[in-house]
Amino acid sequence: MIEPKNDNLRVSASDRLRVAIFGGSGYGGSELLRILLFHPNAEIVFVTANEHAGKSVGEVHKNLNELTDLRFDKAPDDLVVLNDIDLAFFALPHGQALSLIPSLPKNVKGIDLSGDFRIDDPDVFKRFYKLDHAGDAQKNFVYGLTETNREAIRSARYIANPGCFATATLLALAPMVKSSLLTGKIIVDAKTGSSGSGAKAAANTHHPQRMNSFYAYKPFQHQHLPEIEQHLRTVGEFENDLVFMTHSLSVSRGIFASCYMETKVNISNEDLRNLYDDFYKDSFFVRIVEGSPDINWAKNTNFCDIATHSNGKQVVVFSALDNLVKGAAGQAVQNMNLMFGLDEKAGLVFPGGNP
Amino acid sequence: MIEPKNDNLRVSASDRLRVAIFGGSGYGGSELLRILLFHPNAEIVFVTANEHAGKSVGEVHKNLNELTDLRFDKAPDDLVVLNDIDLAFFALPHGQALSLIPSLPKNVKGIDLSGDFRIDDPDVFKRFYKLDHAGDAQKNFVYGLTETNREAIRSARYIANPGCFATATLLALAPMVKSSLLTGKIIVDAKTGSSGSGAKAAANTHHPQRMNSFYAYKPFQHQHLPEIEQHLRTVGEFENDLVFMTHSLSVSRGIFASCYMETKVNISNEDLRNLYDDFYKDSFFVRIVEGSPDINWAKNTNFCDIATHSNGKQVVVFSALDNLVKGAAGQAVQNMNLMFGLDEKAGLVFPGGNP
Amino acid sequence: MIEPKNDNLRVSASDRLRVAIFGGSGYGGSELLRILLFHPNAEIVFVTANEHAGKSVGEVHKNLNELTDLRFDKAPDDLVVLNDIDLAFFALPHGQALSLIPSLPKNVKGIDLSGDFRIDDPDVFKRFYKLDHAGDAQKNFVYGLTETNREAIRSARYIANPGCFATATLLALAPMVKSSLLTGKIIVDAKTGSSGSGAKAAANTHHPQRMNSFYAYKPFQHQHLPEIEQHLRTVGEFENDLVFMTHSLSVSRGIFASCYMETKVNISNEDLRNLYDDFYKDSFFVRIVEGSPDINWAKNTNFCDIATHSNGKQVVVFSALDNLVKGAAGQAVQNMNLMFGLDEKAGLVFPGGNP
Amino acid sequence: MIEPKNDNLRVSASDRLRVAIFGGSGYGGSELLRILLFHPNAEIVFVTANEHAGKSVGEVHKNLNELTDLRFDKAPDDLVVLNDIDLAFFALPHGQALSLIPSLPKNVKGIDLSGDFRIDDPDVFKRFYKLDHAGDAQKNFVYGLTETNREAIRSARYIANPGCFATATLLALAPMVKSSLLTGKIIVDAKTGSSGSGAKAAANTHHPQRMNSFYAYKPFQHQHLPEIEQHLRTVGEFENDLVFMTHSLSVSRGIFASCYMETKVNISNEDLRNLYDDFYKDSFFVRIVEGSPDINWAKNTNFCDIATHSNGKQVVVFSALDNLVKGAAGQAVQNMNLMFGLDEKAGLVFPGGNP
Repeated sequence: MIEPKNDNLRVSASDRLRVAIFGGSGYGGSELLRILLFHPNAEIVFVTANEHAGKSVGEVHKNLNELTDLRFDKAPDDLVVLNDIDLAFFALPHGQALSLIPSLPKNVKGIDLSGDFRIDDPDVFKRFYKLDHAGDAQKNFVYGLTETNREAIRSARYIANPGCFATATLLALAPMVKSSLLTGKIIVDAKTGSSGSGAKAAANTHHPQRMNSFYAYKPFQHQHLPEIEQHLRTVGEFENDLVFMTHSLSVSRGIFASCYMETKVNISNEDLRNLYDDFYKDSFFVRIVEGSPDINWAKNTNFCDIATHSNGKQVVVFSALDNLVKGAAGQAVQNMNLMFGLDEKAGLVFPGGNP
Repeated sequence: MIEPKNDNLRVSASDRLRVAIFGGSGYGGSELLRILLFHPNAEIVFVTANEHAGKSVGEVHKNLNELTDLRFDKAPDDLVVLNDIDLAFFALPHGQALSLIPSLPKNVKGIDLSGDFRIDDPDVFKRFYKLDHAGDAQKNFVYGLTETNREAIRSARYIANPGCFATATLLALAPMVKSSLLTGKIIVDAKTGSSGSGAKAAANTHHPQRMNSFYAYKPFQHQHLPEIEQHLRTVGEFENDLVFMTHSLSVSRGIFASCYMETKVNISNEDLRNLYDDFYKDSFFVRIVEGSPDINWAKNTNFCDIATHSNGKQVVVFSALDNLVKGAAGQAVQNMNLMFGLDEKAGLVFPGGNP
Repeated sequence: MIEPKNDNLRVSASDRLRVAIFGGSGYGGSELLRILLFHPNAEIVFVTANEHAGKSVGEVHKNLNELTDLRFDKAPDDLVVLNDIDLAFFALPHGQALSLIPSLPKNVKGIDLSGDFRIDDPDVFKRFYKLDHAGDAQKNFVYGLTETNREAIRSARYIANPGCFATATLLALAPMVKSSLLTGKIIVDAKTGSSGSGAKAAANTHHPQRMNSFYAYKPFQHQHLPEIEQHLRTVGEFENDLVFMTHSLSVSRGIFASCYMETKVNISNEDLRNLYDDFYKDSFFVRIVEGSPDINWAKNTNFCDIATHSNGKQVVVFSALDNLVKGAAGQAVQNMNLMFGLDEKAGLVFPGGNP
Repeated sequence: MIEPKNDNLRVSASDRLRVAIFGGSGYGGSELLRILLFHPNAEIVFVTANEHAGKSVGEVHKNLNELTDLRFDKAPDDLVVLNDIDLAFFALPHGQALSLIPSLPKNVKGIDLSGDFRIDDPDVFKRFYKLDHAGDAQKNFVYGLTETNREAIRSARYIANPGCFATATLLALAPMVKSSLLTGKIIVDAKTGSSGSGAKAAANTHHPQRMNSFYAYKPFQHQHLPEIEQHLRTVGEFENDLVFMTHSLSVSRGIFASCYMETKVNISNEDLRNLYDDFYKDSFFVRIVEGSPDINWAKNTNFCDIATHSNGKQVVVFSALDNLVKGAAGQAVQNMNLMFGLDEKAGLVFPGGNP
């Protein structure tokens, strides 16, 4: 058995959380593996990938070659066999977790990285996802934006882990919505790296073209819009119009959101900065920076970097994060830490590279 | 003598315009060379680059190796010697053309690619450029956004060629401003490729970092803002607030502007599209496209691609162009064509590659 | 009818060659379109792409949007209908032209961009392509490496257009093989951009991974090896072992070949350079450069840039070209020019951009 | 004080090695900081960067923002003050460590990441580095290629850490040289990412050009050649000619070496693979892979991935690593671990990302 780190750096095996990963072949599952294999308090018991069943994890995700003995399994037909685990992560395509998670044994918690349980209103869910809610399971899910929802997450059984665009946008908007300073329309101009399209090759991620591209997609129709609006209504009094627009970058990793807002009265740069500093003073993974964040400095990390600027009543807030870490697998582990009473940062304090 | 094209494809030498280029070492000058060397109606008489004086053009701009015998000259001390040319292009750093162009011989026209003559108000110019107007020379300059200013350009002696961001933004906004349909604030979220920073290596264009970067810069303070506002006031009744924000992409070439507007009453996608089709029906170099433009399809060309979308009163218009061609040298040549009664498209109908 | 250039820049319509393109949807076909639409002596009569039949060319290849009225056709069932054309280009997947070209009407010439007719020996062809020769059609094909085979090309009916790797390698090796100075083994370490994998998305061109990749593929087994060896035997006395290795770059366009050779006696840098200068003195599209070529300066052009270096008996020759132009469509047009008595450079003297 | 990891994951502070870093502003120093800040057995006592003295490390290397309280210091005038540290790393420009390291207090060990102490022969050193040896200090240095020199490194006082190209090349060649199977000339075609040029912006790393580039440099003259030859003579009977050629890739991180060799008798793929498996059976950081390594899977890690292929007597070995980690800072820490009796892997088992 390969042991990727010294045993003395981890809690003893019997004290580790026993976790499963459903959907280990995509980028979300791959990043869960990368993080959890090195988590001091967790042990991956099994990971599914039907198309790769039997193959070693390191053969499929070559970054993990020689770092683990794990092999991919087929998903079990009946989740009742999972009753010796503590937690299951679901990193499956939209729609597949809908029936799975509600059938987990009672003692097993669940974190879903898809959009299946993010939308409370069944009509809105149907409109954006073309799917129906799974009975009344939705009411057992807590929205997993760690920084704005910590207490609810601690006691949650099920977590709907936020979308990557939604995470970047909500972390940029939440302090302003909470402050009640906003008026008028909000515009969010959001951009994503190509890994946001997933691990399967497709026309829009064909390298010869994508490396020189920048374009917009799904104008006025992105499915993260209702997720953002729904959560903002829990953060504060949110009745503003929100225009949310998504674009594609020619980098591999990263979300960058430029958020344009207006305040009821003039706000100074200093007051604005203080508002964000204060809101995130206990949030290790949000860094308030000067000038502008850069996805280059957030890549491969669980940080969301934010900068704020005002000009009279006009406010712009920039946020940058790694779509696969803080925008997916990293935030999922952050939520796991809270759900099991661990340090929120456990297993997540790894730096990105320079360059 | 190398002759880059068959003589029978060009007008006879005696009928060609005799042009000079001041500042041939930067990307703007380099693209002027690339275009004008193949222009059927123009002959480059000389090109300056003080630091490269005596070197062949093809040694400095290796894309032009073996395509021309031209060598770089030092700029003449007194422009009076230029009285046998028809036109001079100025592709110099901001500030250097201020005193030069007004001293051109009376029979020589001028096109300036810098920001020196774009701003009519001396106070605004001073605020954004930290420079003073050159006496009253400013009044002799016509703003060279070809598509909105054709008639004035035809009879102009001097042209202030628009900035790259300004071109992308203005072409996206002009039809709406002209229509008088707008109300409220306009947000322009603009992004540029790294060649927009010029041909000299600098920290923000250091490849190891830039290839994974996306960031914002100069929030609320970019010098193209007053240029855009000034010109919009000539296009229609423009009294809207404009928030203009610039960002940096990890591609080499391209400007992409996402322009968020609001109409007084609901507008359908079809009506919006028709408005743009109509406005640009005689403008070969503006292509109205479905979905979204992509800088990949505009790169290395003189096209500006535009797409429009509405949702009730909310409108977004996307524009994409090559910052060095339609955003600089190409548009300058387009203006030259008009100034000398040539076909506006002469020398400019070259396609980009796929991919 | 859109006319991409002034008529006075082209020969009159009745004097233009009438050409057809089979396989217009891939990158090879796309580049043929880009070049031939602007060729002064050619007119594209039709272009096939079964999957896109009926669509406009500019809708599929968005770089050509608004530059042509052409639409894609289905390939005709019987090529006998083509008897009013002068020349057909075939840019189809390997194997598809084998039966097509021999069935062209007698008055129609053909240029094949695939590997179907490059290998004279049927056993070697079978081994590398898993295909059989099409009867005795092979003997009617001339190998289309323009610079080494001009006279044969002028009088050819059918051309087997060289592979991209083969072009870069042969242009680097030919002067040495011709010189009879070589001894011992030759090593060619060749690298290609991602467009060499074609226009269809695939795992090895998935942007998130490819943008950070460099890897080797097909060690000792690339199908361009026998093509290179076969042609070198026609250039000079070639009995050397040749190790040919292919690698993948994270750029879109470009082939770079590093060719390691050994001479029987010491050779100076100057003598080596003179050998190449002399060999290519009448070849406009081969540029001998100092230091190293760079694919950046050859991209989007029909040039092959070459640099030579010696150290005692050790010689290295670097060559760089655009795999889709000099390595495919450009060279095909260069051969067309020769076959029809035109200037070899006609329609091909376009510069790449800087940057 | 920020503590980047739980204290229970590290040995107690009093048991940690006390280390200093000279030259913390470049990429080598930056990666040393990234690794050592998270090393369970090391404590960075100070880090120098004269130009940034007083600034926080996280302000200069923004990937480390909020991960450390360290600030940059000026280098001390007299190294005698360092007598309370255990080890100093030197990541300075070539030439600067020559006089520094020999003046370290007797109880302090040193690891030099520059080329200052890699070449034993003063004449060769002078020829390639234009510098003189520092008295007889050279004899106290051990060459730090961990996998081939472990025992000598364990007892070394000073380490000359190998160059990035040299590491990739030596790990690919060493098993063959040791085996005595080689005959004839060896060709190494090596390629590096842009971070190999350092953290300072320069013409060859200007993003607009570099992102589309591939080119060769320093033919027959790279300073890693004598370093490779010198070390191979200690690995086995090495009398072969070696042609070593360096090229530049358009990625940020990564070295890829294609090494062409010839064996005295035919060798099968299986025997070749076994030779490498056996040679590296105790080397965790060398992974023998199928097909080809890819720099994408080695980036940000301390792994060197190797693949081997034979064809009769012709052998090619591909190696890939991250130039800043296994090619610099990671290997330096690996050597530190050995010098102080720690697990060779301590602090170095971190995975790269997918993608």
